[in-house]
Amino acid sequence: MPDYAARLGAAQERMAEQDIDLLFLPRSTNLHYLVGIPREEPNFGNTIYPGEWLTGAWITPNRPPVLTLPRMLAEFHLDVAQSTTGYDVRVLPDAGDPLGLAHDVIAGLGLQPDAAVALEDRTWAETVLRLQQLLPGARLSLASALLGPLRAIKDAEEIATLRKAGAITEAAYQATLDRLRHGMTTLDLIAEVDYQLKRHGATAPSFVTSFYNMGPRLPFDFHNREEVRLLPLEPPVAVSFDFGAIYDGYCYDYGRSVFFGEPDAEYRRAYELVIAAQAVGIGALRAGNTCAAADAAARSVIDEAGYGEAFRHRLGHAIGMDVHEPPFLTTADDTELRPGMCFTVEPSIFIPHHFGARVEDVVVVGTAGGQPLTAGFKALHVV
Amino acid sequence: MPDYAARLGAAQERMAEQDIDLLFLPRSTNLHYLVGIPREEPNFGNTIYPGEWLTGAWITPNRPPVLTLPRMLAEFHLDVAQSTTGYDVRVLPDAGDPLGLAHDVIAGLGLQPDAAVALEDRTWAETVLRLQQLLPGARLSLASALLGPLRAIKDAEEIATLRKAGAITEAAYQATLDRLRHGMTTLDLIAEVDYQLKRHGATAPSFVTSFYNMGPRLPFDFHNREEVRLLPLEPPVAVSFDFGAIYDGYCYDYGRSVFFGEPDAEYRRAYELVIAAQAVGIGALRAGNTCAAADAAARSVIDEAGYGEAFRHRLGHAIGMDVHEPPFLTTADDTELRPGMCFTVEPSIFIPHHFGARVEDVVVVGTAGGQPLTAGFKALHVV
Repeated sequence: MPDYAARLGAAQERMAEQDIDLLFLPRSTNLHYLVGIPREEPNFGNTIYPGEWLTGAWITPNRPPVLTLPRMLAEFHLDVAQSTTGYDVRVLPDAGDPLGLAHDVIAGLGLQPDAAVALEDRTWAETVLRLQQLLPGARLSLASALLGPLRAIKDAEEIATLRKAGAITEAAYQATLDRLRHGMTTLDLIAEVDYQLKRHGATAPSFVTSFYNMGPRLPFDFHNREEVRLLPLEPPVAVSFDFGAIYDGYCYDYGRSVFFGEPDAEYRRAYELVIAAQAVGIGALRAGNTCAAADAAARSVIDEAGYGEAFRHRLGHAIGMDVHEPPFLTTADDTELRPGMCFTVEPSIFIPHHFGARVEDVVVVGTAGGQPLTAGFKALHVV
Repeated sequence: MPDYAARLGAAQERMAEQDIDLLFLPRSTNLHYLVGIPREEPNFGNTIYPGEWLTGAWITPNRPPVLTLPRMLAEFHLDVAQSTTGYDVRVLPDAGDPLGLAHDVIAGLGLQPDAAVALEDRTWAETVLRLQQLLPGARLSLASALLGPLRAIKDAEEIATLRKAGAITEAAYQATLDRLRHGMTTLDLIAEVDYQLKRHGATAPSFVTSFYNMGPRLPFDFHNREEVRLLPLEPPVAVSFDFGAIYDGYCYDYGRSVFFGEPDAEYRRAYELVIAAQAVGIGALRAGNTCAAADAAARSVIDEAGYGEAFRHRLGHAIGMDVHEPPFLTTADDTELRPGMCFTVEPSIFIPHHFGARVEDVVVVGTAGGQPLTAGFKALHVV
């Protein structure tokens, strides 16, 4: 188990330094990170449980945190009791009054009328407006300013967890490779990847498993729309995977391309360019270098070969308990790289109705360059 | 395509009646409902695109709505252009200044300093605090008060869409039934259901596909935890499905139970009680009756047979573009039932380490009782 008490202590220390009196965290990545209450897999259509807007942790610099939970969540989270030892846990009955409970909690925190309160960035407006009603003089800010610096640097245990998520992801990829055949659909691929991720120990996919499959006879589609994902994949088609495992709350992000049919010399060249650009990007993830410089280094490999227009996005993003975390490997981001930061490195060449090639691994910033957490399957796989 | 212009007109009429000057809708069910910009399947780990907090529609009672979109979303939503004809669409470049764009949009709306602004209930705090910075005198409220009444009554087209979502759901259930065998795991079941949903035309599952499988040799678990979902299901075990298709933005919710092995007389009795309680609940979904009365009617069937403790939750919830919508079929909800409201009716009897039985369909409130949108597979299926 991560050392949640140490994380909480570090957050409280920063609160004291920054004169923040209260940090409120609803169910979110930050709650998972500081308190150990996991997120659930998300639902497409919102679900609602009685008093759900009140779910969260109330953290002050010097007191034990208060945890407010609707009954239904409390009953399902007995297994996190260990991470919340010493917390003041208040459970809201199904027919209870959430506003009254919030009022009582706040009354016990000893806040001044103009207290500085930090809120998780994705707190619901439903919660924000009610907290403002209860704390009308409070000065609100976003929790990312407080917690971002803690989450940006991954410690050895976090890196080990990400490495395990990567191992599950590559095992699922290997199992899927064994099942590739001409004529299967994108839906078949998605179903196989998602099944193999869970079979190998993932909680679920860390984001929606996506394919960018391109060939002369396929419609251009980055979103695996209902009608496109049921089309058979007949050669020639370049099949690009983008997926990752969740393991113990940490998110992996991984990409490879394979070819159905016989790739021509142009495709082989584009594929090797992407692999070469990634190697340059990994080498540039050196402490003291900048995000922008790493992006530029990898991009120049593709630019100089004349495919710059076909590399349409940033080189990568930080990753950890969220899939996308700041900072970003993009020309606009001058953040200095520091040991323990983790980034995806994911160059691509996509030419609609023609072909696509991409590769992606998670890489830890080191003093002499980046250390990838996955590195298999780099030679072009032909089906 | 739903008549988005009519929906928008109805919302604007309500805004004028309630003296609301601005309705801001970020990417959400309400944006999908009023504007036709679909939600995406959600990711477990947050993703971030440049300026994403600004995504949304700015609706005033009398002007064409403004739509603010980051470039990445704008490029992927050309297919919704039809639903946003007449909108003032502003696209934020990747390196653009979202706060500046929001400022410009607001300047063009002609709002008074103390304007009444309604916000979608699940708007991010990141967005709320920035809007408050730009509109410091605004009086904020939650959009559910404004839009809830519109969404509660489903018109004929919406009911037809839900019926189609139900047909896809039952087709996926039929295909899964054909594949049931002793020794398969809960993960095998989840993977099969999710695959069959999409194969039959669903966008995705409307919520996380869940199984509540109970037998003397299985651990008690409502959450399909990693280690439990890999256990083989050997008789005797009662297997309870809970899942549904998304079709055209509408969410279905469906439940059936099957038995692996030979069910004893007690199980058969409990199973029939659940079916009988559901029939009573469906009959009680009569315009003029109340939510609480419908819950009580169905619950009494199970109570009187001595299984009241094993029916642990509300009888159902309204459903439509969200999985859980108010009102709720529970003793605490006195809302009067009106024609066109849609509810799940989902009684259950769950006895940990023993067995479980449940059934669930979506039902439309009618003048003489409810009309279920699905009704198949009610006889106990034994594997």
